[in-house]
Amino acid sequence: MRAYDVIYKKRNGQKLSKEEISFMVEGYNKHEIADYQMSAFLMSVYFQNLDDQETFYLTDAMANSGEILDLSFLDGPTADKHSTGGVGDGTSLLIAPILASCDIYVPMMSGRALGHTGGTLDKLESIPGFNVNLDIKEFISVLKKNKFAMIGQTKEVAPVDKRMYALRDVTATVESIPLICSSIMSKKIAEGAKNILLDVKTGNAAFIQEYERSKSLAEKMVSVGKQFGRNMTAVITDMDEPLGVAVGNSLEVVQTIEALKGKTDNDFVQLSIDLAAFTIQQVGLAKTFEQAQKMAKEKVVSGQALNKFIKMIELQKGNPKVVDDYSAFGKAQNVSYVKATEDG
Amino acid sequence: MRAYDVIYKKRNGQKLSKEEISFMVEGYNKHEIADYQMSAFLMSVYFQNLDDQETFYLTDAMANSGEILDLSFLDGPTADKHSTGGVGDGTSLLIAPILASCDIYVPMMSGRALGHTGGTLDKLESIPGFNVNLDIKEFISVLKKNKFAMIGQTKEVAPVDKRMYALRDVTATVESIPLICSSIMSKKIAEGAKNILLDVKTGNAAFIQEYERSKSLAEKMVSVGKQFGRNMTAVITDMDEPLGVAVGNSLEVVQTIEALKGKTDNDFVQLSIDLAAFTIQQVGLAKTFEQAQKMAKEKVVSGQALNKFIKMIELQKGNPKVVDDYSAFGKAQNVSYVKATEDG
Repeated sequence: MRAYDVIYKKRNGQKLSKEEISFMVEGYNKHEIADYQMSAFLMSVYFQNLDDQETFYLTDAMANSGEILDLSFLDGPTADKHSTGGVGDGTSLLIAPILASCDIYVPMMSGRALGHTGGTLDKLESIPGFNVNLDIKEFISVLKKNKFAMIGQTKEVAPVDKRMYALRDVTATVESIPLICSSIMSKKIAEGAKNILLDVKTGNAAFIQEYERSKSLAEKMVSVGKQFGRNMTAVITDMDEPLGVAVGNSLEVVQTIEALKGKTDNDFVQLSIDLAAFTIQQVGLAKTFEQAQKMAKEKVVSGQALNKFIKMIELQKGNPKVVDDYSAFGKAQNVSYVKATEDG
Repeated sequence: MRAYDVIYKKRNGQKLSKEEISFMVEGYNKHEIADYQMSAFLMSVYFQNLDDQETFYLTDAMANSGEILDLSFLDGPTADKHSTGGVGDGTSLLIAPILASCDIYVPMMSGRALGHTGGTLDKLESIPGFNVNLDIKEFISVLKKNKFAMIGQTKEVAPVDKRMYALRDVTATVESIPLICSSIMSKKIAEGAKNILLDVKTGNAAFIQEYERSKSLAEKMVSVGKQFGRNMTAVITDMDEPLGVAVGNSLEVVQTIEALKGKTDNDFVQLSIDLAAFTIQQVGLAKTFEQAQKMAKEKVVSGQALNKFIKMIELQKGNPKVVDDYSAFGKAQNVSYVKATEDG
């Protein structure tokens, strides 16, 4: 098999086999296939698409470029949540402690920011001392003690994705549904949670702006996850307006802490509770969505979720003082208020 | 300007400006734009095409990556011929001495073989001692003495094309009309002849097999050449059957010599005379195509073309003995008979 033949076949709109897709990804991972062939392949995928089965093969090959975490030894359900991002999306920070309070394990590995949207990692690092770079052993240890941990993707997680994404970023091949899907899902699969909740943002402030494309992406990710035997739920949420008011890494953490302390009368908290409820229902802890919502809200109101959050900060070497004294964040970087920015 | 933006724009089907196309080609030529961006660009051109004006810009940028020969000091018309190639196409070898016998300067630079089709250079090099690597000064000197010279493209001729073609060859982007057009025309423009005859092959044995695609290529090349102020003629010839019987580098030279000695009763000679006639008419030496055909044939029958051919071999350090004694070719390499091959 030659890379040329695989590019040629996809360029001509033909369906690729598992072997052909593995050949491309493994070859690229081993530096046996050059960047220029991979970029031509990615552009041909942009134009000719991959069906759900081909996208599964691609995701599988990418996940298998590294380690696939086995979390089946944990004595409870495991759940992960991924958001396709957008300005001001920090729901993971609130959802994880809520779910942990429900005795659901949340092994959360996050990526860095994409473009102008801040990543979960960047937000957590605004807490002085907070360590997002735990190794797998430390990660599992925090997870066991507190039911949730939030770290950066380790180098073992789908390593080929990093190189493929960097290449897509400079060759105008980012905006391809099967490529976005395989990039996200290869990491989620490798991270090992049995239950996966996808929050696909749509609208002007989101990474993908058209509703139909967001829907296609959601459907493809659900299809791929199911082919791996995972429980999949995808929610499409409107991002025409940024969630909440504050945008900026430490201010988003402040917003989360305010919510955990009981300030729940805003869109950001409502969406986070709804997303947490999807997972609570997914793992079988509630029969109806309304019950699940009630349970999620109770975990916030009772202060249980706040305690989980504080313990997570401690376990990951951050300064828990920030919870009571926001000046402990130090100088907030890259902070801007959406209203101030948009109205000039 | 960034390469990303140019790729993105073409990927989205937008028309590129002269500046954008020059930016890509010059940047690639200077190694400032990487192979992986160029291959993504080429694949987006494969899918989104280039119109005649964009193809002119591309051709112009490629021609200007090297020297553009100025042959206006010569005291007669200058003509060049290009064939898109195919099994057994060796008409250049016969056409050039016919035209030179008509006092038309034929500064012919040829490429190497593409795939299974032998290039004119490979055929000439089957003549022991024959030097296809003259520099520009030697080339002009042979041209002045004998009206025609046949060499390999010098390194000054559209150098970026060599790298772009090598990249296309491994990224499944060869089969694109505007890319084929700009590759051929950038070299023809740089080679400096005022009159250009294009012989576009079509049919099963040709590089491009579908008639409609051959026609599109012919039309695009004529359009591009006219935008450079050159006199353009394109002929589409049927290659469903290989021309002549012998296929193989030295055997094609033998076929040419046999024709020049008067064995003219075959398709190969008829086509060569017809193609020579197009140029004779193009430069104004005959009013009708029939008169031009007659003139071309007369140059063969009279032996004038043979004399030109022998002198060309001498001037380019080849052994002219091969004309009288075919065993002087030495062992013919890569020889196969079409009939024998196809019938098993």
